[in-house]
Amino acid sequence: MFYFSTGYRSAGFLAYLSSQIEAPSGWAPLVFDKEEYDYGNNYNNRTGVYTVPYSGLYLIHARVYGWDNKAHHYIRVDGESVTYTYKSDPDYNSQAGSTSVVLHLLAGQKVTVDPGFSGTIDGRTGWMGTTFGATLLYVD
Amino acid sequence: MFYFSTGYRSAGFLAYLSSQIEAPSGWAPLVFDKEEYDYGNNYNNRTGVYTVPYSGLYLIHARVYGWDNKAHHYIRVDGESVTYTYKSDPDYNSQAGSTSVVLHLLAGQKVTVDPGFSGTIDGRTGWMGTTFGATLLYVD
Amino acid sequence: MFYFSTGYRSAGFLAYLSSQIEAPSGWAPLVFDKEEYDYGNNYNNRTGVYTVPYSGLYLIHARVYGWDNKAHHYIRVDGESVTYTYKSDPDYNSQAGSTSVVLHLLAGQKVTVDPGFSGTIDGRTGWMGTTFGATLLYVD
Repeated sequence: MFYFSTGYRSAGFLAYLSSQIEAPSGWAPLVFDKEEYDYGNNYNNRTGVYTVPYSGLYLIHARVYGWDNKAHHYIRVDGESVTYTYKSDPDYNSQAGSTSVVLHLLAGQKVTVDPGFSGTIDGRTGWMGTTFGATLLYVD
Repeated sequence: MFYFSTGYRSAGFLAYLSSQIEAPSGWAPLVFDKEEYDYGNNYNNRTGVYTVPYSGLYLIHARVYGWDNKAHHYIRVDGESVTYTYKSDPDYNSQAGSTSVVLHLLAGQKVTVDPGFSGTIDGRTGWMGTTFGATLLYVD
Repeated sequence: MFYFSTGYRSAGFLAYLSSQIEAPSGWAPLVFDKEEYDYGNNYNNRTGVYTVPYSGLYLIHARVYGWDNKAHHYIRVDGESVTYTYKSDPDYNSQAGSTSVVLHLLAGQKVTVDPGFSGTIDGRTGWMGTTFGATLLYVD
């Protein structure tokens, strides 16, 4: 007899970048183009926007790999910066930064990862490096 | 019909640092002064102490942003170091380190983030940078 | 009245490295030798292999501390690289990298952390530094 929940198939996604791209300049979402899974189809892999399906607590995790000394990124909700993960080093070009945070989000809110810098971001098909995901832990 | 759990409102918190402060010297909790949420009111934003409300499995996540070449930190339970996240670079002043770990904790235990170094730690009001949070995943 | 799930005792583990070792050369699992907890006994602390007990969504978290300028690592499933977390700096020997990702895994799959480099990895008994863990969040 299991006591684990089984409802995850209506929310939650994991996407990654499958090729090297230039970071969007200014405030703009990074578009993670490949979906590892997307339960409920709430992530749009052409815009980089995750639309929250149910109000509740979500684990948000992201990683950014940059080739031009920078890898910082913001988690933004409806275009407002909520978290900032810093990663930069002027002496070494290859950088990586990651975020893992549990946020309370409302149904309909739009969540994105915005690098907020200029430069090349790494993407691959062999494994997931630059990634963005959400998991619903509790509903309201 | 949803199969997600809904009980989170009695445990779990997310707090952040809203201004630059000096890291406490020696063993002392970093006081994340602003609460993004604090279900059950188990985190004390004047002392930096999270008192575990129920025995169970918790996702503990923390990030520290330092300005004096260091950002490492310990997760401590009842004053004993449980995890250590290293981040230091003698060549570049701005550093960030993060921890994400699932720990089994007992009701009444006190959880803190201790930087264990001297130097300035970054805090902001525009977004959450230096953060500390806990989410109850399973109860005993 | 609690609304949290209570079933975690049949899955999920947290292990860490208790002494300094040389990273396995080529593709080989890092063996985290000490278990903080291992519900269901699905992690093998002599081989470093976690055998997935139930199909479902798992939070996988790992941290690697290296002394020879490197701390990157792969999460591998059945010997195939699934995620890669980069961390390297030619100018400073002491490095740390961490991964936190939610993966859908199938019962019987084998999950490992492979450093994929040569060099010394830090281990301790005083606290958990180099760690590997899994938590089952939802079953299929």
